[in-house]
Amino acid sequence: MAENVLIVHGGGPTAVINSSLYGVIEEAKKIGTIDKVYAAIGGSEGILKERFLDLLEFPEEKLKLLLETPATAIGSSRYALEQEDYEAMVAIFKKYEIKYVLLNGGNGTMDTCGRVYEVCKNEDIRVVGIPKTIDNDIAITDHTPGYGSAARYIAATTAEVGVDVKSLPIHVCIIEAMGRNAGWITAASALARKKPGDAPHLIYLPERPFHEAEFLEDVKRIHEEKGGVVVVVSEGLKNEAGEPIVPPIFKTERATYYGDVSAYLAELVIKKLGIKARSEKPGICGRASIAWQSPVDRNEAVLAGSEALKAAVAGQSGVMVGFIRDEEAEKTDGVYRMHTEMIPIKEVMMYERTIPESCMNERGNDVTEEFIRWCRPLIGPELRDFIDFRELYEQHAQ
Amino acid sequence: MAENVLIVHGGGPTAVINSSLYGVIEEAKKIGTIDKVYAAIGGSEGILKERFLDLLEFPEEKLKLLLETPATAIGSSRYALEQEDYEAMVAIFKKYEIKYVLLNGGNGTMDTCGRVYEVCKNEDIRVVGIPKTIDNDIAITDHTPGYGSAARYIAATTAEVGVDVKSLPIHVCIIEAMGRNAGWITAASALARKKPGDAPHLIYLPERPFHEAEFLEDVKRIHEEKGGVVVVVSEGLKNEAGEPIVPPIFKTERATYYGDVSAYLAELVIKKLGIKARSEKPGICGRASIAWQSPVDRNEAVLAGSEALKAAVAGQSGVMVGFIRDEEAEKTDGVYRMHTEMIPIKEVMMYERTIPESCMNERGNDVTEEFIRWCRPLIGPELRDFIDFRELYEQHAQ
Repeated sequence: MAENVLIVHGGGPTAVINSSLYGVIEEAKKIGTIDKVYAAIGGSEGILKERFLDLLEFPEEKLKLLLETPATAIGSSRYALEQEDYEAMVAIFKKYEIKYVLLNGGNGTMDTCGRVYEVCKNEDIRVVGIPKTIDNDIAITDHTPGYGSAARYIAATTAEVGVDVKSLPIHVCIIEAMGRNAGWITAASALARKKPGDAPHLIYLPERPFHEAEFLEDVKRIHEEKGGVVVVVSEGLKNEAGEPIVPPIFKTERATYYGDVSAYLAELVIKKLGIKARSEKPGICGRASIAWQSPVDRNEAVLAGSEALKAAVAGQSGVMVGFIRDEEAEKTDGVYRMHTEMIPIKEVMMYERTIPESCMNERGNDVTEEFIRWCRPLIGPELRDFIDFRELYEQHAQ
Repeated sequence: MAENVLIVHGGGPTAVINSSLYGVIEEAKKIGTIDKVYAAIGGSEGILKERFLDLLEFPEEKLKLLLETPATAIGSSRYALEQEDYEAMVAIFKKYEIKYVLLNGGNGTMDTCGRVYEVCKNEDIRVVGIPKTIDNDIAITDHTPGYGSAARYIAATTAEVGVDVKSLPIHVCIIEAMGRNAGWITAASALARKKPGDAPHLIYLPERPFHEAEFLEDVKRIHEEKGGVVVVVSEGLKNEAGEPIVPPIFKTERATYYGDVSAYLAELVIKKLGIKARSEKPGICGRASIAWQSPVDRNEAVLAGSEALKAAVAGQSGVMVGFIRDEEAEKTDGVYRMHTEMIPIKEVMMYERTIPESCMNERGNDVTEEFIRWCRPLIGPELRDFIDFRELYEQHAQ
């Protein structure tokens, strides 16, 4: 009997999900006994429709493009699976002699992964999850592939916008970051700073209730001092009652559409403070950016793919690849250290991980050093240095 | 008497304005007889306040950072100059033994340049303009430094977002590009396409009246065919009556604030067509992006700086550096050719250049091949190839 792999992508794309796919393929080649690495074309729906493509058939030069292709090269879906779908999968796996099923995705996909494991556990079919989400909201693992690149994007972009705003310091610029319930991406904008006073000047996370009056006070104070103000906000800011600060603009049976927090806050600054303001919302430009892919994130994504297959071949099932930081050693010598461990999928299913209190400052308008220390290694090499002759002039003039 | 240069930046930043500054400095070193290259710190206001910094004092390793620093490293301003300000400048130039005044900016700055020239023309002070604007709306010159990088950014970003939307093809994604009156940046999104059917699927420019009914028809048709639709729109779309399609949200004495066209159109798609839609508005993330700086644009920006100083030293005044394309030769062998010429500043003052009819298709939802041919060399090297196994699967399955 053949020994085939099936890899499935679920949910929204990241800049490195294809790197995990590359890791799976390369590991399969190394193992040597794998016959086919099937990709399910179009996510879990692709399993049920038996839309399978063997990726081992493609030359290395094409496969290498996976490392620099954003989103998912084998498609994805948000198809809602029913119990009968799970049961139908078992027969399909058998038909294609699939022994290793790897599901790559976020919380929703890990839930699927647990259910696929349930229907396969009495068969010789092993099911392993590969974590992936820009939102970094999967439980237990220290972080998830996809996050480091989204974090690098927002940090680098905030640094560039910061220089832009500073060079013509007449307005408040509000950048909106993705992550509706978890502020991990928004928080990473703090890594734009090279020295005190650098942008971003204010950071607002969805984990803390947002107070408009305090926000306006903060903006006014910094505008008086600097002229230009850069604020980074989560798209999911909520008020004290836990309601989104921008009410939904439309609801359908399947979805709720929220207005843009950044545009709302820029308007507030204009109307309440009489200060020029504008908003930027790069949105999915961020999660699809290859230019700002974090090399650390990419390497870890490759590793997650290869470790998942290794674990399945070694007989593990019902687990997800987790990243564990050796925090104590890091504190001693400042060197980033991570290793993988298999985490029982039941422990991570449908639990959304948000930013802990210790990573946010008291006023709720910035992150703490603890967050910065944790996040810094994930975004990869240090961001570019910029030159600022105005600053040098001020030093000169003093 | 010393022979000093003064360089002044005006208006909004680009990704390569500092490259022109670098060109001026390097040219000054080459010429050898220049004593100081003063930068006016903080734009034209910096002249009046005599905030001057000699850039020849800085080591080459610091100056090189100019090539990769977005926005303006010597600041800028939108200060409205009065006639008495212009007259005051002459005395200041004399006091600092400034013989060459170089003004780098867009249409507003070229207007300033013309006025500075008027007050200096009977003195031994030469005034030369260096064009700069992401909007590409300066008259006569084929294009302006800053545009190629903004064009590369929107093309590359649209390509990445296109792959993202295609990999989970459930929604319409509307990207908003800068350029309120001229659609040059929006149009450049067409360079994202590598083959027919690639994103962007629709492009709407401010030069053509926007018809909501036609837009909805176009979106519906493409959504039925592809699932995912990518639309790029100018921030300044206007209706048949010439009014912005999104009414101003607020007006002050000095400024009008418009709502976001992309958010407005996404809402329209959701409500009128019942299709999932979202909007992305990278805004100034685009004009400040060093990752997507076009090397062609950067080199031309350096050239514009050095040519401006050369012309001034050679005795020219009241002129702007213009880029002339040798279109006939380009048509013959397809090789991009450009040379600079000095254009009388009066010919370019306050005239806004928009996209010609021949560059837009009949329905007003795309650009023509003529535009693409014109724009392609400006964005620099070809964009990355991505791999798409879903596409390969479909070909396989046929």
